[in-house]
Amino acid sequence: MRESELHQRIYERSRGMAGRFGCVVVGPGDDCAVVKGVGQRGSPAKAGDISRDADATLITVDQMVEGRHYVPGTAIGLIARKAVARSVSDIAAMGGVPAWGLATGVLPDGFAHAAELVDALHTWGERWGAPMVGGDIAFSPVGTALMLAVTIAGVPHARRGPVLRSGARVGDEVWVTGSFGGSLKSGRHLTFEPRVAEGVWLCDGLGDELHAMIDVSDGLGRDAGRVASASGVRLEIDGESVARHEGVEKIEHAMRDGEDYELCFVVGAGAALPPEAPSGVKLTRIGRVVAGSGCGVMMDGRMCDGASMGWDHGGDGGGDGGGDGGGDGVKKA
Amino acid sequence: MRESELHQRIYERSRGMAGRFGCVVVGPGDDCAVVKGVGQRGSPAKAGDISRDADATLITVDQMVEGRHYVPGTAIGLIARKAVARSVSDIAAMGGVPAWGLATGVLPDGFAHAAELVDALHTWGERWGAPMVGGDIAFSPVGTALMLAVTIAGVPHARRGPVLRSGARVGDEVWVTGSFGGSLKSGRHLTFEPRVAEGVWLCDGLGDELHAMIDVSDGLGRDAGRVASASGVRLEIDGESVARHEGVEKIEHAMRDGEDYELCFVVGAGAALPPEAPSGVKLTRIGRVVAGSGCGVMMDGRMCDGASMGWDHGGDGGGDGGGDGGGDGVKKA
Repeated sequence: MRESELHQRIYERSRGMAGRFGCVVVGPGDDCAVVKGVGQRGSPAKAGDISRDADATLITVDQMVEGRHYVPGTAIGLIARKAVARSVSDIAAMGGVPAWGLATGVLPDGFAHAAELVDALHTWGERWGAPMVGGDIAFSPVGTALMLAVTIAGVPHARRGPVLRSGARVGDEVWVTGSFGGSLKSGRHLTFEPRVAEGVWLCDGLGDELHAMIDVSDGLGRDAGRVASASGVRLEIDGESVARHEGVEKIEHAMRDGEDYELCFVVGAGAALPPEAPSGVKLTRIGRVVAGSGCGVMMDGRMCDGASMGWDHGGDGGGDGGGDGGGDGVKKA
Repeated sequence: MRESELHQRIYERSRGMAGRFGCVVVGPGDDCAVVKGVGQRGSPAKAGDISRDADATLITVDQMVEGRHYVPGTAIGLIARKAVARSVSDIAAMGGVPAWGLATGVLPDGFAHAAELVDALHTWGERWGAPMVGGDIAFSPVGTALMLAVTIAGVPHARRGPVLRSGARVGDEVWVTGSFGGSLKSGRHLTFEPRVAEGVWLCDGLGDELHAMIDVSDGLGRDAGRVASASGVRLEIDGESVARHEGVEKIEHAMRDGEDYELCFVVGAGAALPPEAPSGVKLTRIGRVVAGSGCGVMMDGRMCDGASMGWDHGGDGGGDGGGDGGGDGVKKA
């Protein structure tokens, strides 16, 4: 079973969860789950209008697996940084701000950098406003590789509420922050800055006109396809318009390499955005929302299937997703 | 570095976290962390009187590591059950009720039971009132063993608020639910029922007279020692009074085997408790709180050091903690 099949199974199993459990506003399937407080003994919170749910808490967790998210030999501080940053990026993708975190790790027996690892997880959590309030560190008698999981909770934007993937509408425009491609090769996947400030700024300025948002981890084509799928629309991207990092020559790499951790967001037609956010991060209109399904990418005069670009999470060792591979032994997730 | 040293480092590093971050009421070091909502952009929640903080959220995470928390070959459903139950037990130890959960897993490449595992995690989460709102499943290219981590969030008791480890006072009485010893040998560590109902019932009935509580995972002596340490007092336990499971002959095993997941709680002197909770679970007074430090256990006419009974979490492969070992290759954590 592939990871994508497994995820599908989880989403199907979770359908209706928000109705059955009062505290669940948004269950599995978006960048974060959204939960609300409940009085003890189950006086359920009302789901209400999700998009205004500023009282809710955003929750996300991501794992870091050696040989998949980083190559053996990567500095402990960078491993910890990426572990925290990936989850912070999910909070940014909802327009939220990090509030607290949990860190767990399974360390190989005799692992010599445990203290350094713990310090770095705390330092990076606090750096992004998410103190590590708890966690669990265990030494494994059988494991040979380090495994980390970082949970981050966040607060949605006070006026806009959580920005889901599902709000894109026909006629909308598709935008991105920053540049794309070559993240693994260049090492940027270890040092990227999650777009928290930019997400908040977009909520501030666009309010209701910010319809949908996702952070790009598995490749711009694939992640744009996820917005399309969640929204029941089709996203069409002009591949030429997507800014590429230096050294990334082919559009294809910008679309499928992944690990960019930029924001891809959908706004009402005609929304006025400057060429840069106040942080200096570039803002680019790259496409539009049309009726249909999937994500089309116009490259070299042909419309390609964007949703199949980037990485699926294969459990069979097969790489169906393409991607740069980078010759560095890292498989993306 | 041993796990206990690592934990100490985390606690020291986290000191003052609650003052620096408005959302943190209780940081690392208790059964759960306690967090509160914050308005976006950091209008901090007031820490207020922790023990009345019924608005807060309880958070805990525990890992399940093959060869440590279960032996290879254990049924997937039981592994998932224990992974969820351990964290639910931490919520129970604060007097809370589970509200939602997150599950993460690293699966060996080609792991054949992924769907079964995911289903079981969801089923057990819902069984204890904590739907799995999110998670992350990754296949590991290098790992050979299954690793799970389950986060559970809970709601504190509406009137009593979170029951911490730190409230024991000189003159108090020490009580436990249930019986102790032989959990690994008997397989009970895979099938125990977390004492959520009993924790709530204790909060209902004792209110402010319920001073401190912990769930017994690492051995009654060691965990009682943690209450002593957090409260700045000494707990003295009459070993004879601790109920033992059938087949557990020595008091020592009841004190140190661990994995019982019963509650050990401290109440004001003279509190009237029946011999059983409404659930039928036994309630036993086993000792008292005196001035001093550590945990003493009276066994066979001698006062022994309880805090050194049970399992420390060694990273060096050495077993300093004693315990039954069980001949089953499982080390407790």
